[in-house]
Amino acid sequence: MASPASELARTAPVPPPFDIVRAAFVELRVTDLGASEAFYAGLLGMIVSARTDDAVYLRGWEERQHHSLILRQSPPAQPAAAARLGFRVRTEDDLDLAAAHFAQQGLTARWIEAGSDPGLGRALRVWDPFGYPLEFFGTIEQVATQHQRFDLHRGAPLLRFDHVNLHAPQVEDAFRFWLSLGFRCSEYISTDDAATERMTGAWLLRKPTVHDVALTAGTGPRLHHFAYWVTDPAGVMRACDQLAGGYRTDVIERGPGRHGVSNAFFVYLRDPDGHRIELYSCDYYTGDPDHQPLRWSVNDPRCRSFYGTRAPDSWYEESSLLLGPDGEPVPIASANVDERAQRSEVAA
Amino acid sequence: MASPASELARTAPVPPPFDIVRAAFVELRVTDLGASEAFYAGLLGMIVSARTDDAVYLRGWEERQHHSLILRQSPPAQPAAAARLGFRVRTEDDLDLAAAHFAQQGLTARWIEAGSDPGLGRALRVWDPFGYPLEFFGTIEQVATQHQRFDLHRGAPLLRFDHVNLHAPQVEDAFRFWLSLGFRCSEYISTDDAATERMTGAWLLRKPTVHDVALTAGTGPRLHHFAYWVTDPAGVMRACDQLAGGYRTDVIERGPGRHGVSNAFFVYLRDPDGHRIELYSCDYYTGDPDHQPLRWSVNDPRCRSFYGTRAPDSWYEESSLLLGPDGEPVPIASANVDERAQRSEVAA
Amino acid sequence: MASPASELARTAPVPPPFDIVRAAFVELRVTDLGASEAFYAGLLGMIVSARTDDAVYLRGWEERQHHSLILRQSPPAQPAAAARLGFRVRTEDDLDLAAAHFAQQGLTARWIEAGSDPGLGRALRVWDPFGYPLEFFGTIEQVATQHQRFDLHRGAPLLRFDHVNLHAPQVEDAFRFWLSLGFRCSEYISTDDAATERMTGAWLLRKPTVHDVALTAGTGPRLHHFAYWVTDPAGVMRACDQLAGGYRTDVIERGPGRHGVSNAFFVYLRDPDGHRIELYSCDYYTGDPDHQPLRWSVNDPRCRSFYGTRAPDSWYEESSLLLGPDGEPVPIASANVDERAQRSEVAA
Amino acid sequence: MASPASELARTAPVPPPFDIVRAAFVELRVTDLGASEAFYAGLLGMIVSARTDDAVYLRGWEERQHHSLILRQSPPAQPAAAARLGFRVRTEDDLDLAAAHFAQQGLTARWIEAGSDPGLGRALRVWDPFGYPLEFFGTIEQVATQHQRFDLHRGAPLLRFDHVNLHAPQVEDAFRFWLSLGFRCSEYISTDDAATERMTGAWLLRKPTVHDVALTAGTGPRLHHFAYWVTDPAGVMRACDQLAGGYRTDVIERGPGRHGVSNAFFVYLRDPDGHRIELYSCDYYTGDPDHQPLRWSVNDPRCRSFYGTRAPDSWYEESSLLLGPDGEPVPIASANVDERAQRSEVAA
Repeated sequence: MASPASELARTAPVPPPFDIVRAAFVELRVTDLGASEAFYAGLLGMIVSARTDDAVYLRGWEERQHHSLILRQSPPAQPAAAARLGFRVRTEDDLDLAAAHFAQQGLTARWIEAGSDPGLGRALRVWDPFGYPLEFFGTIEQVATQHQRFDLHRGAPLLRFDHVNLHAPQVEDAFRFWLSLGFRCSEYISTDDAATERMTGAWLLRKPTVHDVALTAGTGPRLHHFAYWVTDPAGVMRACDQLAGGYRTDVIERGPGRHGVSNAFFVYLRDPDGHRIELYSCDYYTGDPDHQPLRWSVNDPRCRSFYGTRAPDSWYEESSLLLGPDGEPVPIASANVDERAQRSEVAA
Repeated sequence: MASPASELARTAPVPPPFDIVRAAFVELRVTDLGASEAFYAGLLGMIVSARTDDAVYLRGWEERQHHSLILRQSPPAQPAAAARLGFRVRTEDDLDLAAAHFAQQGLTARWIEAGSDPGLGRALRVWDPFGYPLEFFGTIEQVATQHQRFDLHRGAPLLRFDHVNLHAPQVEDAFRFWLSLGFRCSEYISTDDAATERMTGAWLLRKPTVHDVALTAGTGPRLHHFAYWVTDPAGVMRACDQLAGGYRTDVIERGPGRHGVSNAFFVYLRDPDGHRIELYSCDYYTGDPDHQPLRWSVNDPRCRSFYGTRAPDSWYEESSLLLGPDGEPVPIASANVDERAQRSEVAA
Repeated sequence: MASPASELARTAPVPPPFDIVRAAFVELRVTDLGASEAFYAGLLGMIVSARTDDAVYLRGWEERQHHSLILRQSPPAQPAAAARLGFRVRTEDDLDLAAAHFAQQGLTARWIEAGSDPGLGRALRVWDPFGYPLEFFGTIEQVATQHQRFDLHRGAPLLRFDHVNLHAPQVEDAFRFWLSLGFRCSEYISTDDAATERMTGAWLLRKPTVHDVALTAGTGPRLHHFAYWVTDPAGVMRACDQLAGGYRTDVIERGPGRHGVSNAFFVYLRDPDGHRIELYSCDYYTGDPDHQPLRWSVNDPRCRSFYGTRAPDSWYEESSLLLGPDGEPVPIASANVDERAQRSEVAA
Repeated sequence: MASPASELARTAPVPPPFDIVRAAFVELRVTDLGASEAFYAGLLGMIVSARTDDAVYLRGWEERQHHSLILRQSPPAQPAAAARLGFRVRTEDDLDLAAAHFAQQGLTARWIEAGSDPGLGRALRVWDPFGYPLEFFGTIEQVATQHQRFDLHRGAPLLRFDHVNLHAPQVEDAFRFWLSLGFRCSEYISTDDAATERMTGAWLLRKPTVHDVALTAGTGPRLHHFAYWVTDPAGVMRACDQLAGGYRTDVIERGPGRHGVSNAFFVYLRDPDGHRIELYSCDYYTGDPDHQPLRWSVNDPRCRSFYGTRAPDSWYEESSLLLGPDGEPVPIASANVDERAQRSEVAA
């Protein structure tokens, strides 16, 4: 018998097998590295921390972690994709616990040597049961924050990496996986019939904000977007004004607007390969141990868009492919909820 | 030979036959006066200046003019409509000059006695050659501004009446009419073939802001919207948050967003009868005598929407009917530009 | 030999004797309960969660915790004071660990029965070695958040309790106490001579923001202020406009402005008894385990006030007394740093 | 018998002897042209329109008028000063009317040839009865606006010249002078005894905003400040953050804050010679012919500072000298109101 979504969402947290601090970076494979650097560093104003032969490492203005975004040139004839979703664990010991945990589960995992990426310690790359490439690390070089160099911020004042949002064909199965790693649920969307209630979206966290990982029903496994924190709605709109003022309205896909879910005041941009980045502000504190998830009905129009603005179809349909252990894109499958439900989801 | 749109837009101003200060009010006929008052006073937070048997008179928080919005109960079985578009002239003498001017043009005009509306002096009601019901006045009761009572503002911080936007089947003809009254053009939209260039939208002013009257190609004569000034984008978004927070996302039709034309940061709301009100901020100074109009191509996507967000069809298609001299809605005709051009217009 | 301040600030965290989640509430003794409720609920717009014979329990708009501010009528002839500083611990077991820990240290401690305050579970009240009345609890009633009821927010949009700031005669001694409870340091201010460097202010955290507790050199023990989180600078200024617009400029003591320390965009208000509340926005993420404290020189003018605005003397000199175990105000002593250094502190 | 201030403030407007459109520019004499250009163009981000051997011509981001700020190198050993306050008149004919008017009044006046400044037509320079150097012009080169190039704005987003504020020893006499040129009063400050009421500050306008010229009681004639319009409070604060973020807190003299008078949300900066520039936002529409001035009591603390923040003494005491017909600074005299009244003035 299927567990109704709300019961699942309210599952008591389990003692985590190892201690994940937060979602911390993504690596994007891009078809034209120069164009991608021009987008993230030139247009959006991110800080370049390092360059290698085939990659550029960037960070936001607040960040002290060496990098939170890696752009890497795809081999010729290979499509753009997201190569890995990085998570920080608390200590090096947690990495060993993670390796043991995933080995027990029979998941494909690999150790990545320290220094394979500038500034990064050893890492454990794991493909979860659904094909998402996760990477865990416990050590990264610390650099000086540029938080208060307001005179240098420009483009889109991206402060720090906040979360990833995943298109998942079976949200509830993915939800159980993250729960098993010690994540808690802050908000979820579900269908309205209590007996057959299905979860169509979920926001999951380790750090005490609304989320580190969001799951939204859709063809997958794919990365819907990754998000950087921006101070406030004024910062989100300033980004829009700067982009449009510089004749780059074309990179704005959706917004500015507010999600009911997560309370985010957002704008979504698409990079030259179509990877989607969210500028995200206005979430809230979730760190109390008895914090209970909020439910949204999939039929509540405010859940999708607090102000009622319709999202373009591309926002519901398009997502980044993910790389499998063989370096090829992970095969995707359609969602197990109908199209209508998909349109009702909100990714925040 | 048809005058290309840009030549028309750049016509030198003529000495006006009488001195219009600015667009100053609208009267809306509504099908449920209580519901309309609940919308404008209750939900949007406007100040009620007076009530009569069949009407409510409202003003914005900055305004000292007795009222800038009149809601009047429609007779049974009559549709909602806009009854008159009010313009302030400089002196009572200007009213007499106006009467003589319109009489010479053979337009239908009527004197309205002082006191027919609370606080309002005598007025001249005129139907322009296209059927728009205009009303000119030179005297109105002054009341105390509530500009700095920030503690009382709520809903949508509407400060003052700013402009009307008219759906006009033949924009260029209407443009010439307003030009003859001493209006100047700040911005316009036109088609791209220089030889056959057609104007599809125009922003016209007496007070030194972007406009008092906008004309946008479309089935008409109809009132597309009237607009109130809001301090800044933060105020526009606060209005959206308050509306959505109070479960009234349904009244938000378009936005928040920015128009390329006029630079407005806006949101459009629909009242219970579908009358459209814009919260408007961010325009600019146009009072220098050599101020030249800016041209936008009808094919420039930023003209429609600076951030690229698609407007809902309703925003292009729906407008308020206007009342004719017989109290019946003025018959409407389709625009003389094609549907594609209509979609390209921006009303700001 | 005195440990220089920077060495102290960078002390590696110790395993905490029990798990404190965050600073969670304050109780203020007030001389006129009605006037105080009018200030916090009426003027600032906080939500009243409960009233008892002698107390009012309030919370911010985001909060699900039953209350975060308690106003209690002082007995006749007793001065206003802060009665307790509340901290949430993770579990009920942590309370027992806390009791054992403080007993071992020989501190005065008392168990408070569950229900002594509406909604609150059993609590452990402890006077720390300097006389600050701390209270630890692990259970509190959860209520519905009003986070997105933007239509109801007014006055000062206080979202959630953020931190307390303490006037401490000997900052370094107090710093060591908090360190021993598992707190970490995000920022500190110190004198410039490396050999004799003294700490004159410190920001200490459990939840991953800039702080839960700040210590600033000054006559003490006293409570300098408690702070509520506000979404953004626009919210802080809206609060100022609403207060001044309603003729209550008198309650604004300092700001709006920004601190260099903590990056806070703030305003400080004084309640009818002179208790000080800060509206606080714009801090940053501090949750990474290798997060290192930032140092500010006591001579850096941006540390005090990022924009250079001079704080009034009252802000440096006045603070709330604290209640001792006997219900009388704890005796106070002057700071062990000179007056000049005091003026250089920034409390954020 | 002296006319009480309120009677003076409410004097009916006279038909102006010639048509002044608005305050349009200032010329500053500076002791280090490179340092001044670095301040206005480099730090504040203004656009350089032209450079000559001894001068730099700048404009704001919205402006189409060739320049609104002239920086000119002072001869060696001559102090910094303001050389002229520029006003636009409607037509060239108005210039001739102005010349006749001032000749009749026996004022020192000179014609300046067209082209003496890049882009500027012929101009009439006049020293008013109190020694302020005024310059009137009717023609200036038009350039492209950069209003929507939000991607290029930086530092302090100065959009357009707004007003000048003059330290005047005898406010009421100066007030009468400006009245005679067709200016109207929007707000004024006066003492509280009705019989002997004295005006200590006045805001006077031609364009329909709060002012083009403000008069504040103080040692003079001197230029207290000139002001540029900034979109909104968020823009004012962004300027502060960018200045402080770039370690230039030293240039911020007062603010950010709000004046009760004029409703301005402001910040005041000092350039390398001490000339004062205000970033100004949030005023209101004053164009209706029956617009009545608002009175503020000199004893109302909100008048000085809506939020109650004390201005530094320098803001009350320091102002730019003005150049006389002989190229030497105009001798100054103390105000005819006492020191207390001076402190109570607000310049907006």
